[in-house]
Formats: sequence, structure tokens, C-alpha cells
Amino acid sequence: MSKEIEEGLNLSLDYTKLKKVAQCPEDVIPAIAQCADTGEVLIVGYVNKLALETAVKEGMATFWSTSRNELWIKGKTSGDYLEIKDILVNCEQNSIIYKVSLKGKGSCHTKDKSGKPRYGCYYRRLKLSDGKIKGLEFLNGVE
Amino acid sequence: MSKEIEEGLNLSLDYTKLKKVAQCPEDVIPAIAQCADTGEVLIVGYVNKLALETAVKEGMATFWSTSRNELWIKGKTSGDYLEIKDILVNCEQNSIIYKVSLKGKGSCHTKDKSGKPRYGCYYRRLKLSDGKIKGLEFLNGVE
Repeated sequence: MSKEIEEGLNLSLDYTKLKKVAQCPEDVIPAIAQCADTGEVLIVGYVNKLALETAVKEGMATFWSTSRNELWIKGKTSGDYLEIKDILVNCEQNSIIYKVSLKGKGSCHTKDKSGKPRYGCYYRRLKLSDGKIKGLEFLNGVE
Repeated sequence: MSKEIEEGLNLSLDYTKLKKVAQCPEDVIPAIAQCADTGEVLIVGYVNKLALETAVKEGMATFWSTSRNELWIKGKTSGDYLEIKDILVNCEQNSIIYKVSLKGKGSCHTKDKSGKPRYGCYYRRLKLSDGKIKGLEFLNGVE
């Protein structure tokens, strides 16, 4: 993933993402990891049946990596895992929320200017003016 | 959508959802509507470029209905709309969060036992025991 996409202030949404996800041989649905304490949405991934069952068994947020087509127990090796507090299901039963507690330094693979992994993946907002999108800005305002 | 799926206590996740979404002619990414005050995740939908630009222009959470293949300005006709407070973007720029304020009665199309539209779509949790899934239960415990 390019530095510009992850750290830049130009909006460049990859609208082809879901078509790529759907090319994965496994059937998956969106899984949102949300901090149980603060309500912050940390990361959105995808789960198949095995990933959900593994999450329940291990007590850690688990996804199906649709790019590598393999099970992804988040943070299992690094220690930066997301301990599951609760798992919610929507009305139509086609998405889930992992309510989690972050064990470790951060849940995003990117790092802030000080070199610390970011707590979650949603660290930028759209900059809006006169009903139009003018780019991105960092939520904390300083980066 | 069947009553059993929406109101029942049996887990019956539709893992084929994302493949269905991807059959839509439009390129879309996940869009999470989250209550700006409580942090509650209300609904997950999908957006294309037009839906996001419309959301910004109208100031209301807007999705692309992948089943009807049309623009869906949530609550525009009913008045139960989601006023946009902020729009966040993730590291890889392939999903967004609408931080919203609910104007109206509820954001879910289902109704609780009293006939009131539910505030959000995630009103049930997985019931877990010994690392296994035992079904669903209502978050408020009473339904």
C-alpha cells in the first residue's frame, strides 16, 4: 500500500475493493472491530465461518484475509491482539461487530509520526467546504 | 427478509452477502453509520462515488442500494435521516465511517415489540459458552 494513500491528504478511495474481496474463493461478510470502551471503530475486515468460529474459540478478533486467502488471527504473533468482549449481529445477519479490548500498542498497521502504531485505522476525516470534498485532514490535527 | 432472520435467536449468517454486493454493476465500498454521540454502530451499507458526493452535498448519510442498484438517501422521504457530522476514511482508503446524528425515530427498518423502529441494526449478540456459539440473544435482554 502506498505511503500517499495511507499518509497523504488526497482522497483516493479504492471503490474496487469489494469486487476484489468477492474474488476470494471464500464467502465472507464485513466484520467491524470496535473498541468496547471508547466506541472507536478500529478496523473493518471480513470473516467467513471459520474465522468467526476461531474468534469465538480463541477469544481474539479473527478475520479471513481475502488478499492472502487465509485465516488471520489479528495480533496472535505480535501480541497486539484484540480481545473479544462481545460479538453483535445485524438485523439481516450479514455483518458482525467484534466489541474488543486492544491488548498491545495499536490495531492499525500504520504508524504515526512518533513511530507508534495507530490505535485504529480511521485517523483521517474528509475536509468539506460548500458541500464539496476538498481532501483529507488528520483527526488529531497535528500530523 | 424473513421474520426468523430478523427477530429470531438462531444464528443464520448470510455469508454470501459480499458476493451478492459485488454483483452490483457499481463499484462500492463499505460505509458504516455510527452515532456521533454514543458511538453506537447503527447500520452498515455501501457507497459508490455518487453516494458519497450526495451525502456531502445533502448532509445526510447516503448509500448505494446494491440490491436495487440505485441511490439511497437514507430517511430523505420518511424524515428518519442521519445527519452527517463527520466522515472518516481508513488507512487503505477502502471504507468510510459516517459519524451521524439520528433525526427521527430509528435507523433500522425493523421494529421492537412496542412497534418502535430500532435505533440501530445491531440489537442482538452471540450467545457463547465454552468457546462455542450457542445462538443469539437480544442486547436489551427483554425481547
